[in-house]
Amino acid sequence: MNPQISFITLGVKDLDLLTRFYRDTLGWQMEKEQEGVRFFKMNAGLIFALFGEVDLAADIGLDGYQPAPPGSFKRMSLAINFDSITKVDAFFAFLKERGVSIQKEPETVFWGGYSGYFKDPEDNYWEIAYNPYL
Amino acid sequence: MNPQISFITLGVKDLDLLTRFYRDTLGWQMEKEQEGVRFFKMNAGLIFALFGEVDLAADIGLDGYQPAPPGSFKRMSLAINFDSITKVDAFFAFLKERGVSIQKEPETVFWGGYSGYFKDPEDNYWEIAYNPYL
Repeated sequence: MNPQISFITLGVKDLDLLTRFYRDTLGWQMEKEQEGVRFFKMNAGLIFALFGEVDLAADIGLDGYQPAPPGSFKRMSLAINFDSITKVDAFFAFLKERGVSIQKEPETVFWGGYSGYFKDPEDNYWEIAYNPYL
Repeated sequence: MNPQISFITLGVKDLDLLTRFYRDTLGWQMEKEQEGVRFFKMNAGLIFALFGEVDLAADIGLDGYQPAPPGSFKRMSLAINFDSITKVDAFFAFLKERGVSIQKEPETVFWGGYSGYFKDPEDNYWEIAYNPYL
């Protein structure tokens, strides 16, 4: 039995900007803030958290961390899956209505699913997909 | 109601090395491989995935992505929580027995919990914590 992941924490440059994006633009419910970390309860037992990147580096104990250049790729992605192509399209329509940057329009992809990407204001990438194999 | 996160995908340099780390060193059960992505089922509905960083960038549609320098901080962390300090200590003992790099020994932290970090062979950081407020 694999362990449960309790937190996904993104190190961000502008905590208020990112909070407004997830809470107000996407409309996600923010649970609380504790010591500069903003928490969003997602799946059962899983919290998505926003934390200043320099503070996160300090918490990990990375000495002398220099903030990454704006726009540099974090080499990770997060995904939200829907159970139909229609729901994926509806979510992209919602994103556009809210002015969210679409990174890749949803399309049928080589592995047999239907997938696109949006990005948050600091270029964190979210895949929105229908995966018939899940 | 916030959406469910279906995937956390790490872009990695050496897919086989990282697979061996999570599957063999940590002993996590690997579900399958599909088109170069390695899947580990974690929480209900949540898959932790490993994917080559250049392939991930291409999937997102980032043109001209240059691989990040080895050791550069990904500006994110993942966390596994246990329900007691004893279990956190036991997990660190297991990590040391398996030769895993400890980034920060577990200790009582300012927010009232007990927490430490380990890292995988490509410096992805995992916090292992007891959080009395969860």
